[in-house]
Amino acid sequence: MNRNATLWWDQKTGSICYIDQTLLPNKERIVECRSARRLAKAIQRLEIRGAPALGVAGAFGVALAASRCRKKTLELFLVTVARDAEMLRSTRPTAVNLGWGIDRVLDAMKKAPDVTGAQERALTVAEKIYREDTVCCHAIGKHGASLLPDSCTILTHCNAGALACSSWGTALGVIRTAVQAGKQVNVIACETRPLLQGARLTAWELSRDGIPVTVITDSMAAHFMRTSKIDAVIVGADRITGDAVFNKIGTYMHAVLARYHGIPFFVAAPLSTFDITGKARDIVIEERGRDEIATIGNRTFVPPAVPVKNPGFDATPLELVSAIITENGIIRPPFTMTDLEQGRTK
Amino acid sequence: MNRNATLWWDQKTGSICYIDQTLLPNKERIVECRSARRLAKAIQRLEIRGAPALGVAGAFGVALAASRCRKKTLELFLVTVARDAEMLRSTRPTAVNLGWGIDRVLDAMKKAPDVTGAQERALTVAEKIYREDTVCCHAIGKHGASLLPDSCTILTHCNAGALACSSWGTALGVIRTAVQAGKQVNVIACETRPLLQGARLTAWELSRDGIPVTVITDSMAAHFMRTSKIDAVIVGADRITGDAVFNKIGTYMHAVLARYHGIPFFVAAPLSTFDITGKARDIVIEERGRDEIATIGNRTFVPPAVPVKNPGFDATPLELVSAIITENGIIRPPFTMTDLEQGRTK
Repeated sequence: MNRNATLWWDQKTGSICYIDQTLLPNKERIVECRSARRLAKAIQRLEIRGAPALGVAGAFGVALAASRCRKKTLELFLVTVARDAEMLRSTRPTAVNLGWGIDRVLDAMKKAPDVTGAQERALTVAEKIYREDTVCCHAIGKHGASLLPDSCTILTHCNAGALACSSWGTALGVIRTAVQAGKQVNVIACETRPLLQGARLTAWELSRDGIPVTVITDSMAAHFMRTSKIDAVIVGADRITGDAVFNKIGTYMHAVLARYHGIPFFVAAPLSTFDITGKARDIVIEERGRDEIATIGNRTFVPPAVPVKNPGFDATPLELVSAIITENGIIRPPFTMTDLEQGRTK
Repeated sequence: MNRNATLWWDQKTGSICYIDQTLLPNKERIVECRSARRLAKAIQRLEIRGAPALGVAGAFGVALAASRCRKKTLELFLVTVARDAEMLRSTRPTAVNLGWGIDRVLDAMKKAPDVTGAQERALTVAEKIYREDTVCCHAIGKHGASLLPDSCTILTHCNAGALACSSWGTALGVIRTAVQAGKQVNVIACETRPLLQGARLTAWELSRDGIPVTVITDSMAAHFMRTSKIDAVIVGADRITGDAVFNKIGTYMHAVLARYHGIPFFVAAPLSTFDITGKARDIVIEERGRDEIATIGNRTFVPPAVPVKNPGFDATPLELVSAIITENGIIRPPFTMTDLEQGRTK
């Protein structure tokens, strides 16, 4: 296993390998995924999650479907693979990268002369997306690190780390690059209810890298913003429309609290997350299952008769964002269309 | 058992009975507590919690210590009971009601002619505090209900309900009285990490009363304030100083978010919670154990090498409070010392 990767293509078996993120931090199990159907389940169950990782997974998923498809004519082959692609796409409606990765591979196959050619192109493009993702995270890291003081405390939510990408990370990529450049960074990881990706994943990957990290509940962020020195909030994104950042539920809370306490609020995300012609009001926010709220481990905490709500994401209006960090540079308010298109403010 | 009470004195056995709140909503177990030491453990473990309930528990605790004390001389008797009282007091440093209940009973005993007289007085005063608490909650309910529209959605945090008092509740007392008066109230209960008193206790007691309640994670409050109609936030308090409200961690977050979204933020609390000569900066915020954050049910979510923080309370500056509801009436900004002393604004 590539210790730094969380998701990759295994040449020998022709399958997608990934760390099952539902088992972290207690078990580090590598799953070998041999069908698009299994991958769809993995995405739905959040064995694989994180916007850039979903882009890579979508791309590899189409390549996997292509490599396993036994249709002889190109037309039937493409129809069959497209059906698998749609099944994958439907697993997470809010995340934009998933569809982006899927579409890049589907497009590449369309120009192929025959089935074998299409299979080869699919894998080539998927591998390219995989490699680009790491390059992209390092570029985001470099641009973002310039925003951090030499010694600082950064609050983050959910996991926008190596586990959310193929490696390095977006929000945590900024922190990793800053640390690599000699800056002293303390991280406060909000646990991120309901699925605790902050406590389980961010804490795990930062501590493995020797970066100081402390876990708090989401409800403590305001208290520490008021009583301690927090220099910035950095989060990732699942979709950036022309007017808002969609990210893990709780992100909007941090943005409002950061504004109130005069703390910069940064979003780190590759351009593959951008949907700038989109409007926040048109985006479907995925409503996830009751059990994620009501049951933790083996215990149920919400009485059976009581309903819950479980939106997976929230929308943070761009007015609350201090800067968006992309692979091309830093976009600063007022976030003009031109700047959003180019991924930086000149 | 008195179905509406959560904590009471059992005449037959001369012991304190209470519902063990750590087991709710899955088990409704009544504990018969026969020593001050067991009571201290119950308070520390949050088998009994909630500011007014702690006042009643402290009072009954001293009465229990007195009734079990075998010292023959009044002087030795008082010293022994006082020692038990200090042990009880030390269990929760931030909650002001606990010490208030303890001191009222200790004071009553001082004027007793002999040991038997002191024991009788202790129980009489403790029973009086118990009865006053219910009367007080109903008065808070009446005053607070006048603030709510005829049809409304109220967000609350933690549990300031019957389970936090001897019955009826403070924040939930306001909601119960409004419902009794024919108002339509929908409640959004924030689950309240780390110990999930919102999911476990508020949801349980409201649904038992047929009041519509929905559970969300704490991090969703901002999202629903932005996207739904929330008419007010109502919370309880563990201590109200001259400049701030101390309550369950997360309360300050809700206060900032409510202000940002133009939603009234109400605090419902009896005058026994007031410490108005106190200043927020002098109050010790109880730091609770790692396990409450790291472990839920039978599963550990935070990697062993990663530290956590677990302040039990936060401080909400009075500037963020729209009104304080007491048994005497409603205190409105700017919260003058006179108004705080009298428990209402004329």
